[in-house]
Amino acid sequence: MINLNEVLAQVHKEIKEYIGKGKVADYIPELAKVDPNHFGMALRLRSGEEFSNGDADLPFSIQSISKLLTLTMYIQQVGLELGDRVGVEPSGNPFNSLIQLEYEHGIPRNPFINAGALVITDGLISVFKNLEDEILNTARRLSGNPTVNYDLSVAASERMTGFRNAALVNFMKSYGNIVNPIDDVLDAYYHHCSLSMNCLDLVRMFSFLANEGIDFNGNRVLSFRETKRVNALMMTCGTYDAVGDFAFRVGIPAKSGVGGGIVGVIPGVMTLAVWSPALNSQGNSLAGTKALEVFTTLTGRSVF
Amino acid sequence: MINLNEVLAQVHKEIKEYIGKGKVADYIPELAKVDPNHFGMALRLRSGEEFSNGDADLPFSIQSISKLLTLTMYIQQVGLELGDRVGVEPSGNPFNSLIQLEYEHGIPRNPFINAGALVITDGLISVFKNLEDEILNTARRLSGNPTVNYDLSVAASERMTGFRNAALVNFMKSYGNIVNPIDDVLDAYYHHCSLSMNCLDLVRMFSFLANEGIDFNGNRVLSFRETKRVNALMMTCGTYDAVGDFAFRVGIPAKSGVGGGIVGVIPGVMTLAVWSPALNSQGNSLAGTKALEVFTTLTGRSVF
Amino acid sequence: MINLNEVLAQVHKEIKEYIGKGKVADYIPELAKVDPNHFGMALRLRSGEEFSNGDADLPFSIQSISKLLTLTMYIQQVGLELGDRVGVEPSGNPFNSLIQLEYEHGIPRNPFINAGALVITDGLISVFKNLEDEILNTARRLSGNPTVNYDLSVAASERMTGFRNAALVNFMKSYGNIVNPIDDVLDAYYHHCSLSMNCLDLVRMFSFLANEGIDFNGNRVLSFRETKRVNALMMTCGTYDAVGDFAFRVGIPAKSGVGGGIVGVIPGVMTLAVWSPALNSQGNSLAGTKALEVFTTLTGRSVF
Amino acid sequence: MINLNEVLAQVHKEIKEYIGKGKVADYIPELAKVDPNHFGMALRLRSGEEFSNGDADLPFSIQSISKLLTLTMYIQQVGLELGDRVGVEPSGNPFNSLIQLEYEHGIPRNPFINAGALVITDGLISVFKNLEDEILNTARRLSGNPTVNYDLSVAASERMTGFRNAALVNFMKSYGNIVNPIDDVLDAYYHHCSLSMNCLDLVRMFSFLANEGIDFNGNRVLSFRETKRVNALMMTCGTYDAVGDFAFRVGIPAKSGVGGGIVGVIPGVMTLAVWSPALNSQGNSLAGTKALEVFTTLTGRSVF
Repeated sequence: MINLNEVLAQVHKEIKEYIGKGKVADYIPELAKVDPNHFGMALRLRSGEEFSNGDADLPFSIQSISKLLTLTMYIQQVGLELGDRVGVEPSGNPFNSLIQLEYEHGIPRNPFINAGALVITDGLISVFKNLEDEILNTARRLSGNPTVNYDLSVAASERMTGFRNAALVNFMKSYGNIVNPIDDVLDAYYHHCSLSMNCLDLVRMFSFLANEGIDFNGNRVLSFRETKRVNALMMTCGTYDAVGDFAFRVGIPAKSGVGGGIVGVIPGVMTLAVWSPALNSQGNSLAGTKALEVFTTLTGRSVF
Repeated sequence: MINLNEVLAQVHKEIKEYIGKGKVADYIPELAKVDPNHFGMALRLRSGEEFSNGDADLPFSIQSISKLLTLTMYIQQVGLELGDRVGVEPSGNPFNSLIQLEYEHGIPRNPFINAGALVITDGLISVFKNLEDEILNTARRLSGNPTVNYDLSVAASERMTGFRNAALVNFMKSYGNIVNPIDDVLDAYYHHCSLSMNCLDLVRMFSFLANEGIDFNGNRVLSFRETKRVNALMMTCGTYDAVGDFAFRVGIPAKSGVGGGIVGVIPGVMTLAVWSPALNSQGNSLAGTKALEVFTTLTGRSVF
Repeated sequence: MINLNEVLAQVHKEIKEYIGKGKVADYIPELAKVDPNHFGMALRLRSGEEFSNGDADLPFSIQSISKLLTLTMYIQQVGLELGDRVGVEPSGNPFNSLIQLEYEHGIPRNPFINAGALVITDGLISVFKNLEDEILNTARRLSGNPTVNYDLSVAASERMTGFRNAALVNFMKSYGNIVNPIDDVLDAYYHHCSLSMNCLDLVRMFSFLANEGIDFNGNRVLSFRETKRVNALMMTCGTYDAVGDFAFRVGIPAKSGVGGGIVGVIPGVMTLAVWSPALNSQGNSLAGTKALEVFTTLTGRSVF
Repeated sequence: MINLNEVLAQVHKEIKEYIGKGKVADYIPELAKVDPNHFGMALRLRSGEEFSNGDADLPFSIQSISKLLTLTMYIQQVGLELGDRVGVEPSGNPFNSLIQLEYEHGIPRNPFINAGALVITDGLISVFKNLEDEILNTARRLSGNPTVNYDLSVAASERMTGFRNAALVNFMKSYGNIVNPIDDVLDAYYHHCSLSMNCLDLVRMFSFLANEGIDFNGNRVLSFRETKRVNALMMTCGTYDAVGDFAFRVGIPAKSGVGGGIVGVIPGVMTLAVWSPALNSQGNSLAGTKALEVFTTLTGRSVF
């Protein structure tokens, strides 16, 4: 049988030359301060066994990976039928483009582009009295780590410079696709994007995606059908404008963030998380993408 | 010689059936309250003679006609070269579209679409300590009417519902094409759009456009060359997505507003203003457009 | 162990009500003549066992499924690096849109939209003296059926009405992304789209996609890596503008055609083919999509 | 009174430094052979007096100026109501873009962009048995020059390389907005674009536009109303993507061609023609635009 500690060590070795290559996201000033030379990786089998390597216990800004958490909460509360307010198709456009949004009358293509995630956040505000608390509690509960927290300096930094997101949410409100006040939506959105977590937190939090919807405490988070939808969405929309390339190279459902993190799922088998801050030209962690590619190649574990 | 009072009476008679046809702008709740059956018209010859008809002395919300005033102020302060921040070409898109703006990296097509007018407003904020006062004083001075004022309920109403404009200004700021704080730009913009003036005020205020840049007190407002540019811009960009049709039917430079007003210029001859609140499908006053068409036909005074 | 004959019978029973629902493609006059009430399904395991149901041995127009064949031939001849002439990302636009093509300077998003398939065809013309013969021979060899043939009346019908495709190929040639004469490219394209094959032919022809690149005679068609790329492309781009929805409902890589056929792959396990002529609003076989959904649900065999 | 021979000489002198600046159109190989250092200018007053300067009697390829002739013929045959098949608004896009055409379902924005001119040509084919002959006869009759002819080497050159135009016409036919065979439309279009005429021919041919629709023999070509429409269309759509800038700098209705010619009209006063082959970045003759600008400045004869 494969020794996964050795596999992770081998992955780390093979991708060493890529660590620090690429470019740390600099449109959010706080993120630009992060040392690009970090690399961490963790995985959790369905059985509960965990393996990790490098900076797997160092927290980082999970950014868009948080969209996976809010989408999960939205499906729990509102159900699978996103269709009225947000689609389930890849966009073929950069994550923050307004063009398609105008042609499609304020209905974002999917919940993983910024516009779609803002609609999901808006939907959650309508459900929860205090959404920021609710998200934090959910992240802590699902990850089993009570010290998980928002990085308020990152949230503030993003708020100060997030004119594109403010444009998106105002634009959708002009179409009636945002219900709550603009500032409430942006505040909640920047909060959940600022969640600071490490790779081990992430493989625990999203272990239910590899376990037909059951979390690591044995509690049902989503139904099997809902879990399948989330995994399918990650496969077709999870890595911005690199979905096709990522599917080929890595071959598993995944969600990336501009903080350099990526969460991947081998359905029925394991959840993975990798982190390295420097990004490739498509906004995904360069060394992280490479690490997942090497991992699925070494283990023969892609879905294709 | 033509008796212009008779011409105006004849115009009024010929377009009577169109008054009230169309649709009063309802996306700004305050504007939706206006009685659609008003009709007023005024003209001022280069010589100073004035003629009017109907509700020419009833104030209305000049809305986008104010863009002609702020553009004039901008040219006075910054000069003719708009090119770095705003273009001078027709847009071929609705006045509040974001699509072209994204393809052209946040540079609006011209100063008469909303995005362009917001950039002009932003530019004026950088020049004037108190722009709202400055605009009001300029409107009063150029119109010779010290009672001209903002309609604060209209400004507030537009502010509450103007998500599309908020999207535009945030979007342009994400490209670095807005210098001042978002709220300052929107506040000043909604203020000048809410200016309440009548047809006689307008023909006086814009008399310089028919007089090579000299206002009705004999003061130079713009140079001849600058005046020509403003008139050319009105001809090619002044009536939203109906520029071609308007050029054919009316055949003079004009700027319309969703309050139902239109200001027209026969260069070297006269300035006209017409008001009737109900709009055609392109957002221009239906009876007002018709009245200008009949006027230029009766007098043979189109530029074509 | 699952009895796959029973599964197919159960699938047929469950989707019976959907057969004939939807709309037979009518933009190609010859296709519009097909009886919408057909339904056939077949599958071939990696082991070589085959199962089928309904009209699985009735030939139909495979249309865009042929793009899977020409892509395979292209990769054999030119290799995996499509990037210079055609991308590997989903398009977010209808299969025959020119908009994205203009913004991306004549480089189609992926080889499964019409523009991309035309580039692939052009590339093959540069390699083969007589491409029509070569495609036919490949289809016969891979399916093991020497009677497979073009339906020349369908090809002619499509040629007569295919102005959109002619626009695409001319447009790409204006960007230098078509090398051979327009008419040669269109002729070869309409020929391969007109291939008439049945479900059993298709599961044999594409058995290599479920078998790491080895065909049903034990010959290597593609390398494992190349096979993975083709499967990934089908998952992210194979079902037009329904990729996300299809991934969720069916959950396997697939390629559909407007003739009502769909080929699906469970990597390492089996190749499937289904046919029912009436299409859903996204251009995929309505009953066929439903049948694959029921199949993956009954067998628990989706990749998610 | 102004001596127009002196004015033309003065214009020539002032713009001398610009002659040869810019770039001769090279996408049509035959056009690329033209010496960029030519400059000719002619004008014809409503009274019939003519003035000219430089290479005013040297024929050149009139290219898109021919769209003014075919539009005139179309209005004569079909009337003013273009609206079903082609609009009358500026496009805000390059002259050969397909994007707007797709969003507007195959209805071109105006008859002066290529798509619109192709529709006009198609409409004329439906009227005339032999359109090429009809156009040639009309050009000869209106210009009074029986030696005017097509330059068949230019037509052939454009036909060989005109993939963008072939894309446009195929695309519109896919929307049902082209009635006649693709090749017939393209042939007729390339023929009329290849008309070889000089500046004096052009001011005679289009003298009716400055004379309320009456040509230089006293025959009515268009009604006054139709003439006004054509002039308005030239003002708002005649100079590609430079309409706004041209309106400001030159200030008269005009139609340009990539052969370096421009025809301008001062309604009621005169028709002008200028030719200099090297183009500015917007595809209009660089020295020609400058010459018209200097002319309207020296004479104070812009419409603004």
